[in-house]
Amino acid sequence: MEDILMLLCDVGNTSYHFLDADKDYKESVKTFNPHAITNKVYYICVNPHAKLVLETLDNWIDLSWHVDMSNYYDTMGIDRIFACEAISDGVIVDAGSAITVDVVEKGVFAGGFIYPGVNAMGETYKNISSALDYPFNYDIDLKKLPKNSRDAISYGYLKTLHSEVISHSKDIFLTGGDADKLLKIFPHAKIDKTLIFKGMKKVIAKKQ
Amino acid sequence: MEDILMLLCDVGNTSYHFLDADKDYKESVKTFNPHAITNKVYYICVNPHAKLVLETLDNWIDLSWHVDMSNYYDTMGIDRIFACEAISDGVIVDAGSAITVDVVEKGVFAGGFIYPGVNAMGETYKNISSALDYPFNYDIDLKKLPKNSRDAISYGYLKTLHSEVISHSKDIFLTGGDADKLLKIFPHAKIDKTLIFKGMKKVIAKKQ
Repeated sequence: MEDILMLLCDVGNTSYHFLDADKDYKESVKTFNPHAITNKVYYICVNPHAKLVLETLDNWIDLSWHVDMSNYYDTMGIDRIFACEAISDGVIVDAGSAITVDVVEKGVFAGGFIYPGVNAMGETYKNISSALDYPFNYDIDLKKLPKNSRDAISYGYLKTLHSEVISHSKDIFLTGGDADKLLKIFPHAKIDKTLIFKGMKKVIAKKQ
Repeated sequence: MEDILMLLCDVGNTSYHFLDADKDYKESVKTFNPHAITNKVYYICVNPHAKLVLETLDNWIDLSWHVDMSNYYDTMGIDRIFACEAISDGVIVDAGSAITVDVVEKGVFAGGFIYPGVNAMGETYKNISSALDYPFNYDIDLKKLPKNSRDAISYGYLKTLHSEVISHSKDIFLTGGDADKLLKIFPHAKIDKTLIFKGMKKVIAKKQ
């Protein structure tokens, strides 16, 4: 059962996200030294700096070479691609520093878009006017037009995203660091913070 | 015909927007001196600094006192309120440093929300990643999910707003400095950069 022994890593701009058997954990990009691992690691990496280091290490296997890229586009983040590989049909909402929304139809990537993440959008409102410096209200009733400032920005951020995501009438898969927050507005979504690892496992299985 | 002689002014954070008979023009907040006008001016003002000055001038008449506030909410910008006063039914999209979206139903404000303006949102994407530093594509086909980075952020910004605005199934009124840009995604909207002045005239007519 190689599956159980396999070490997987999704390298982002702030952390190395590992899956060791069924346990996932994160190491900071700032402090983690990839030389410290001598076992085989299958990885994907969106971090240009880390990429240069990992390429020199024989036990770190870049999985991006093993996915059929013909359905995707050149500048698409490899993390989005592997999340798409994990499912056969649905909308993936990956809530990190950006929120990426990708649609997969009958096993094929149909396209996707990029929306600002929770922190970035909070900063945006604050920078427009100090009168808009509120934390978002995730408990907002999206069926009702707001009549106060906090809900006016919360609705502006969340309802617009919500209207577009549900318009695809597909199962919704939530992943990423802020998935829990978005679960409040997508209560029927499937939350899965290891979605990218599922995509990686699928690609490894195909490769073998 | 007092209407023709009336001087109106909508004071924002960057400019004094005047309507003199049927001619509108702007003066910069930085350089314009309101003392220079000796005729009567009916105005509204969202700019806290300008407000303090204008209150001391007898010929500047603050119209905000003459609108029935019971349908609106306390912290709502007076410019949004006067745009709502201008129409009896529809969705107003006012595209400035923020995009405010307000719904009026049978002459009554039904609620509204606030979305980042074109410049603010461009900055947001750029700050998330230099890989997202593109000008928005207003000619994007919103019926098609994107498969390139520029369209992925353009769709993220514009389609989400579009989906929500059209969900109200009402006439759309576009106003504000970036109204022309949004006309591309709302081709059936009525564009009217003097909407707030119409609201001001209506309120003056009621007052008289």
